[in-house]
Amino acid sequence: MFSSIKKLLIGRPLKSTELGEQKLNKTKALAILSSDALSSVAYGPEQILLVLITVGTAAFWYSIPIAAGVLVLLVALILSYSQIIYAYPHGGGAYVVSKENLGMYPGLVAGGSLLVDYILTVAVSVSAGTDAITSAFPVLHAHTVAIAVLFVLFITLLNLRGVTESASILAYPVYLFVLALFILIVMGMYHIMTGRVSPALHSPIGTPVAGISLFLLLRAFASGSSALTGVEAISNAIPNFKTPAPTNAVKTLMAMGSLLALLFSGIVYLAYFYGVTPKAEVTVVSQIAEQTFGRHVMYFFIQGTTALILVLAANTGYSAFPLLAVNLAKDKFIPRMFTIRGDRLGYSNGIIMLGIFSTLLIIAFKGETEHLIPLYAVGVFIPFTLSQTGMVVKWVREKPKGWIMKLLINTTGAVISFIVSMMFFLTKFAQVWSILLFLPFIIFLFHRIHKHYEAVGDQLRLKTCEPAVPIKGNVVVVPVAGITHVVENSLNYVKSLSPDQVIAVYVHFEKEDEAIFEEKWNKWQPDVRLVTLPSPYRSIIQPLTKFIDTVQRKASESNYQVTVVIPQFIPKKGWHNILHNQSSLLIRAHLLFRRDVVITTVPYHLKK
Amino acid sequence: MFSSIKKLLIGRPLKSTELGEQKLNKTKALAILSSDALSSVAYGPEQILLVLITVGTAAFWYSIPIAAGVLVLLVALILSYSQIIYAYPHGGGAYVVSKENLGMYPGLVAGGSLLVDYILTVAVSVSAGTDAITSAFPVLHAHTVAIAVLFVLFITLLNLRGVTESASILAYPVYLFVLALFILIVMGMYHIMTGRVSPALHSPIGTPVAGISLFLLLRAFASGSSALTGVEAISNAIPNFKTPAPTNAVKTLMAMGSLLALLFSGIVYLAYFYGVTPKAEVTVVSQIAEQTFGRHVMYFFIQGTTALILVLAANTGYSAFPLLAVNLAKDKFIPRMFTIRGDRLGYSNGIIMLGIFSTLLIIAFKGETEHLIPLYAVGVFIPFTLSQTGMVVKWVREKPKGWIMKLLINTTGAVISFIVSMMFFLTKFAQVWSILLFLPFIIFLFHRIHKHYEAVGDQLRLKTCEPAVPIKGNVVVVPVAGITHVVENSLNYVKSLSPDQVIAVYVHFEKEDEAIFEEKWNKWQPDVRLVTLPSPYRSIIQPLTKFIDTVQRKASESNYQVTVVIPQFIPKKGWHNILHNQSSLLIRAHLLFRRDVVITTVPYHLKK
Repeated sequence: MFSSIKKLLIGRPLKSTELGEQKLNKTKALAILSSDALSSVAYGPEQILLVLITVGTAAFWYSIPIAAGVLVLLVALILSYSQIIYAYPHGGGAYVVSKENLGMYPGLVAGGSLLVDYILTVAVSVSAGTDAITSAFPVLHAHTVAIAVLFVLFITLLNLRGVTESASILAYPVYLFVLALFILIVMGMYHIMTGRVSPALHSPIGTPVAGISLFLLLRAFASGSSALTGVEAISNAIPNFKTPAPTNAVKTLMAMGSLLALLFSGIVYLAYFYGVTPKAEVTVVSQIAEQTFGRHVMYFFIQGTTALILVLAANTGYSAFPLLAVNLAKDKFIPRMFTIRGDRLGYSNGIIMLGIFSTLLIIAFKGETEHLIPLYAVGVFIPFTLSQTGMVVKWVREKPKGWIMKLLINTTGAVISFIVSMMFFLTKFAQVWSILLFLPFIIFLFHRIHKHYEAVGDQLRLKTCEPAVPIKGNVVVVPVAGITHVVENSLNYVKSLSPDQVIAVYVHFEKEDEAIFEEKWNKWQPDVRLVTLPSPYRSIIQPLTKFIDTVQRKASESNYQVTVVIPQFIPKKGWHNILHNQSSLLIRAHLLFRRDVVITTVPYHLKK
Repeated sequence: MFSSIKKLLIGRPLKSTELGEQKLNKTKALAILSSDALSSVAYGPEQILLVLITVGTAAFWYSIPIAAGVLVLLVALILSYSQIIYAYPHGGGAYVVSKENLGMYPGLVAGGSLLVDYILTVAVSVSAGTDAITSAFPVLHAHTVAIAVLFVLFITLLNLRGVTESASILAYPVYLFVLALFILIVMGMYHIMTGRVSPALHSPIGTPVAGISLFLLLRAFASGSSALTGVEAISNAIPNFKTPAPTNAVKTLMAMGSLLALLFSGIVYLAYFYGVTPKAEVTVVSQIAEQTFGRHVMYFFIQGTTALILVLAANTGYSAFPLLAVNLAKDKFIPRMFTIRGDRLGYSNGIIMLGIFSTLLIIAFKGETEHLIPLYAVGVFIPFTLSQTGMVVKWVREKPKGWIMKLLINTTGAVISFIVSMMFFLTKFAQVWSILLFLPFIIFLFHRIHKHYEAVGDQLRLKTCEPAVPIKGNVVVVPVAGITHVVENSLNYVKSLSPDQVIAVYVHFEKEDEAIFEEKWNKWQPDVRLVTLPSPYRSIIQPLTKFIDTVQRKASESNYQVTVVIPQFIPKKGWHNILHNQSSLLIRAHLLFRRDVVITTVPYHLKK
């Protein structure tokens, strides 16, 4: 029944050989991997204005040079990631690049911050999208958390079905959002050029502003760069592209960068020219759209696609998290289960884990995850800095053809990313301090897991020179609860193996029991030695374990192996199990994990 | 660690032979078994007045004849239960008496309603006691549920410690409550006799009242008889008494009946003479106490002991529920685990189950379980009726010396109990209908469990004439995941048993794997046959199960037994287990419950 529900929800299982069919072409890849980056346009420009307004609306013209700075950073990131894609065609996330060029710990810092960041991506994007919906339909406001959780569930199921199918569904809203913003920007420009927008609404560029400082401008720049979260998604996902994967990935990255640059500068420019002031209830994009179209159908189209792309931005996390998890798991830093492909060939464990953690975040913050945005941005810029520093080291070390140009690009990127990261710590410490606690913790965890896997591998590997101690003989201990078919069945089995010694053990709670049982036993199985153990505290496990320890101590002296054969009857129906005391399961679990004895379960299947 | 916390909370484990020391003497038994019955005085008289007030305060004089009716019922119940105690010295609850005299299904009806009733006793009493406390300290009102749950936890722990120790603690509040009410009644009488209470406060007995009807009087009588819940507790608990148990039990029952009769009639009489009108905020007992003493220290003493005895009344459920559960479990109607004595010789499973269910009820009803009182009362009077009818049948059938008198007593009791039960259904159907759904359900459940146990017993019992099919030989299948020490260890073990055939099975996900592994294997273990199975859907279980089925089919043709030997490495620390894929556990669980193969786990304990 479970398997048929599963099939209904996520589709039939796929063979491993069907993997190729699941690869992405460029159009789908652009949709599936860029929703996070593109949706940032919905809040990036607003973040700049929110900082500038602290010194007054006259300072708004600074948004133009700041946006130019963000665009420079964007260009540097895009160029840098193109170089990474060619240099690491099997997936060049910040984790891989930092690890290979800077060493294990910088790699783990990058990997650790990204893992958490993808969870934040999902939680923040879904919550923001839900807010957009509940703003449109205020009756739903009381159910924010439930709606957000349903969205996460929905996206999780889409991803469990597999990447291609989710891409088909996700392509439309992303392209509709791009279309909507393009129409908005073009119409806005048209209004400005035809003189329908009063020039009095904005202060000219270069107007002197009292109270402006470099600190404030850097802070505005850092805030604006939150529009760049998500650009690394493509470089993580190269193995998902159709061949030639690197070329297709770079083309997709360029397309995404161009779209992002166009939309971002268009919105910043319109906001500046319209003199838009950020408000708590109405977003900047909403204000621009309203001034351009009025409360027209186009306004609702823009708001609707914005809400949709915010929810779907969460999907970027679903593409990136499982792939990063595979890389970390292959290097033995997180549990091995993340490397296993599920029925539909996606890395189900990563997908499910991401769904669970982001749901927990949404519930813990009651759907108000917006104040996690600075944490989210700093978690992106730390790996940006590390991976670009890694590329700098790579070029200096390898000095390939044209390396000076490449070095310049990555150095620029690294320096700007580093400054942005530092700006977050300096200007928004109250919101980002937790990463300073969390990163050391997760790296410690990675380290412990790694050490364990290494130790296990070491102990399992055959050192062919060292011969194993041969087993000289076998002693079998059979705990018996009575004179029944179950016990008879087990004894028959034991006799067929003809071990060197068989001991039946009976634990009794009442003194009177002992003699009666011994008599019955000797009539029934005179050839099997019976040991009876008293149990004044009514525990079966305790006297049994003590007895087995004694047997094992003696047996090991002469290299004999002790096997405990447990007779177990298996009820016909699952619910019947709660009617029986499961002593055999308890005995098995207790012995297996604590003693060096072989445990054999002889099932006796009941027929009714 | 778990065991030391357990020891701290419930005390050191006791040997089975220490059982005798836990038996109750009469003084302790009276305290432990009568708190439920005696605490009913706190609400019984009020229930009568609540019905009478619907036709006016002039009708209050009817409380005197109605109380007389309740006393008759009480006398009938006490006499009847004395007869039951002598007739069933090993514990004569309604379940046993009904089952033996009326048959299995009436017995199960009685047993089922009592099981639920004890849960209701705990939930209702604890909630009422909590209300009394939160009325005294209104700041605690917001925490009603938490306080009630803590009380349940506290009583559960007391009972897990064992009956004698809990009795020592419980004796004081019960006797203090009795003392407090005696002082109240004596002082009240003194005031009346010395003429300090105006005779104008009450209408004389016999005053004609408009609108009075037989229906109303019967309803008032039924309501008043809720004061009798709990009188059956002693007859269930006879095995807990010191020898001679029946005599001691009867004496305790008589003492309890006398106390109950005195307190009940005293409160009814004072309420009548003082002309007390029931109010929503102040209980009848509280009003009497206030009129007698004023808001004096004695008033708070009475209120305090009332609150305490209500909470402790819950303890009656803890004495009765586990014992009833043992009786039902011995007759195989509920899971066998209820017959097992815990570390402290109490029937821990019953105690814990009662704690869990009553906590759930308290949480579900948010501590407002007062409107469950009618359900609770009807759940008591159904078994009352059945057990007394059972006694009637017994006397008619056996005709012992003086049976006519005995017959008359039980017939009176049965008839009155039956009328009271019917009155609840007729006058309070909205509150008691659920028992009509619940009883058939629980009896169906009892029936199914019984059938299962019977079937199991039948299949396990040895029919000595029928010989078991002998095992002609052994085939061993070893699933292997690689060439490691774990596998080597298992193969060594298998070879030491020298079975007829050994097959190693390797499941591979990728075609390339196969040849490489086969080559390595043949170099390493040339004498063990290797079978490789492809798994296009990346499942280990599925191809393995299919293969084992084929092997088993062939083996069973020639009476060979198939054993699956699972190599399993055991990590040194518990948390390491989440880092490994537990395939061996999954394989074992899957095979054990579905196939007729023996499962052997060969542990390989890691050292670091």
